[in-house]
Amino acid sequence: MSIAATPEPPYVAVIFTSLRTEGDQGYAAMAAAMERLAERQPGYLGIESAREETGITVSYWVDQAAARAWKDVAAHLVAQQRGREIWYRDYRVRVATVERDYGPS
Amino acid sequence: MSIAATPEPPYVAVIFTSLRTEGDQGYAAMAAAMERLAERQPGYLGIESAREETGITVSYWVDQAAARAWKDVAAHLVAQQRGREIWYRDYRVRVATVERDYGPS
Repeated sequence: MSIAATPEPPYVAVIFTSLRTEGDQGYAAMAAAMERLAERQPGYLGIESAREETGITVSYWVDQAAARAWKDVAAHLVAQQRGREIWYRDYRVRVATVERDYGPS
Repeated sequence: MSIAATPEPPYVAVIFTSLRTEGDQGYAAMAAAMERLAERQPGYLGIESAREETGITVSYWVDQAAARAWKDVAAHLVAQQRGREIWYRDYRVRVATVERDYGPS
């Protein structure tokens, strides 16, 4: 996992913040499958993820339509598997338009 | 650290993604000071943070002006201390307007 090579703004960020339950219970496999699936979606720009007690995954998309389509695909994958309530004590999804960005250079 | 109790959108998210250098070198103390300082800024709504190899910190602000003011304060704090180049191999800051959000309920 590294910093996503996103293009010039504007583009869309989907910020997924979660508090995990105890134990893996198939979570790691699901998360890896989810990332591989995201990479194949139309309009995918990149993904960044980090986890301590709180987990944050930010996926980047060319536009709102691509972000919405990914939401439906992701929800379907979770539904096919063990259910979100097994993995997360709580979560919040925020869909945002990135207007500017900058780095060290 | 938990999920920020943000209000109804719209509001502003500042997504700070970084790759750390090896060793602490004063980083943990700076990061804690930065979070305490953020909480006292006008327009602050909340902060979420997680770190593995990649670190992601998302701070939330009432509007773009509040986010910009925080950027200046944060840059000043970093400049006062040991310098960003000591702590980060690379980083990217993205400023985004959150248009919708949802959780499990």
